[in-house]
Amino acid sequence: MHVDEKFTLVQRNTSEIIGESDLKELLSMKKKPVVYLGTAITGSPHIAYFLWAHKLADFARAGFSVKLLLADVHGALDGTGWDLLEARYAYYSAIIPLMFESLGVSKKSVLFVKGSDFELSKKYMFDLLKLSTLVGVHDATKAASEVVKLGDNPRLAGILYPLMQALDEEYLGVDVQYGGVDQRKIFVLAGEVLPKIGYRKRVHVMTPMLPGLIGSKMSASVPASKIDLLDDEVTVRKKINAAECVAGNPDNGLMAFLKHLIFVVKKDRKESFVVERKAEHGGKLVYASYEDLERDFISQKLHPGDLKAAVAREIISLLEPMFKDRERLLKLRKAAYE
Amino acid sequence: MHVDEKFTLVQRNTSEIIGESDLKELLSMKKKPVVYLGTAITGSPHIAYFLWAHKLADFARAGFSVKLLLADVHGALDGTGWDLLEARYAYYSAIIPLMFESLGVSKKSVLFVKGSDFELSKKYMFDLLKLSTLVGVHDATKAASEVVKLGDNPRLAGILYPLMQALDEEYLGVDVQYGGVDQRKIFVLAGEVLPKIGYRKRVHVMTPMLPGLIGSKMSASVPASKIDLLDDEVTVRKKINAAECVAGNPDNGLMAFLKHLIFVVKKDRKESFVVERKAEHGGKLVYASYEDLERDFISQKLHPGDLKAAVAREIISLLEPMFKDRERLLKLRKAAYE
Repeated sequence: MHVDEKFTLVQRNTSEIIGESDLKELLSMKKKPVVYLGTAITGSPHIAYFLWAHKLADFARAGFSVKLLLADVHGALDGTGWDLLEARYAYYSAIIPLMFESLGVSKKSVLFVKGSDFELSKKYMFDLLKLSTLVGVHDATKAASEVVKLGDNPRLAGILYPLMQALDEEYLGVDVQYGGVDQRKIFVLAGEVLPKIGYRKRVHVMTPMLPGLIGSKMSASVPASKIDLLDDEVTVRKKINAAECVAGNPDNGLMAFLKHLIFVVKKDRKESFVVERKAEHGGKLVYASYEDLERDFISQKLHPGDLKAAVAREIISLLEPMFKDRERLLKLRKAAYE
Repeated sequence: MHVDEKFTLVQRNTSEIIGESDLKELLSMKKKPVVYLGTAITGSPHIAYFLWAHKLADFARAGFSVKLLLADVHGALDGTGWDLLEARYAYYSAIIPLMFESLGVSKKSVLFVKGSDFELSKKYMFDLLKLSTLVGVHDATKAASEVVKLGDNPRLAGILYPLMQALDEEYLGVDVQYGGVDQRKIFVLAGEVLPKIGYRKRVHVMTPMLPGLIGSKMSASVPASKIDLLDDEVTVRKKINAAECVAGNPDNGLMAFLKHLIFVVKKDRKESFVVERKAEHGGKLVYASYEDLERDFISQKLHPGDLKAAVAREIISLLEPMFKDRERLLKLRKAAYE
């Protein structure tokens, strides 16, 4: 793949890249650059996670070595009880790989790393203390504010979180950190502080946050806003039916999910998105691009009810691998969250 | 020594004990309880350090196993450059033992421990992260405020400081932590948080802060307020002569040093404090107790000039061991502070 093609692939579907020229240089100079995304072990994973899973697949296709950090310590710093951490880690470890399976991404192309396996080393912790002498409480709080649940009385843990995330870039040996735009302030902090203790500033790639089915963000802590990776078919259909989706207005979570995930996946598979309708309601609609679908939705040629049924079918298909191993996964989730 | 005697010895010259009944129980139940004082590796040690050195000797006589933590990591958290830390540690390690020599305390009765030797272990750091999830930024800041130089833009390091000090109690295996009253808020925090992660609350013993020769506190960072352990005889006399000491008013640093250190040492040695005066100025004055001296000072029978000369002589005598090894110590201090 040519450097320009790689860049285009990495860039697609992103909202911002900090260090674009560094990324271009990286792609032309390094045969196998390294990228990572960290997911803190907190709430039960939901379908918005597919967005980053798919993006990591883009990185892999663009020649990157891809690491996925299952950030257990960060989960605890963000409020997961230390006593629940192992059970949650077990659940994440079991279910996240199924997302890649669902997307047709080979297991070999993503290396799973557990945070506590390297973050508690003497050298790492010494670096953390070093960083703590360089970063103000105020700046750390600001950096953490969109990612960590700080509340009215922020804990020290919440503001250590960004510093550890910065160090992870060095200790995972990556060139690029990728995450949602909610990570932006942490990424900027990382770029500022790592060079002060002798480490490189990394490239930061961000994708947009997906709105919830209800509300502005698909959030693990708001059940109605999200579809859990273990929701069954009936629940998926029920949640999609309840989702905010006003005829003619494309500004909602379903449309965003279509745009940023389903159509991207379809395009890669050279498939179209199909809305089944009875003949008396106008018959089947076939969309090759999100833009076509959006146009029909705005003009109300495509109605919310029909769209919802089609989206539900796609999501159920994405969740197929989770249905197969359902009993074991439910047990793991129960142990992790109840 | 009887339990009551031990308690009286530990209690003398203190301003507060948190956990007095626990201390009494400890003294009656445990043959060799353990106490520690930590001194952060920051400014150049000065004569106020003799106060705690002498108090540690009290603990040793009362049957305690005594540990002195040379807290290098804490020094860095309080602003000592990481690059200077080893040089400062080397200086502290060289000069602090001479204080014990000066007081006639056997080397065997105090175990010196270096902070970084145990504070960077995986287990310790894991506990630090645990504590960080339990302690609010606000409470940590409050606890640190009288000990750490926080300034207008506190660093994260400054508020990690109290948490590490709490953990030191556990990792040093002590029953009692002793320090100046400036440590009070950290001691209270330690007592509150250790039980939350399964460790014991310790007894906390405090001695008063010594006022400076000039100003309210003898501080390493205000040269005129203190007599450095490496000041020579001429400098000691000059500083004592410049010290605040108004005839008839006992509220000053010299009188406090007499009360809390010199008279305590004299009493232990069954010696008196002698003020030499020429016959025409009333001749020699001999004091067996601080109270007698204070009475004469208030009534102006004893004048500041004569008192200063006598105090200078006592301090020069305390610094005797430092004079012997002066060249080496000066080199170490130079490397640590210049």
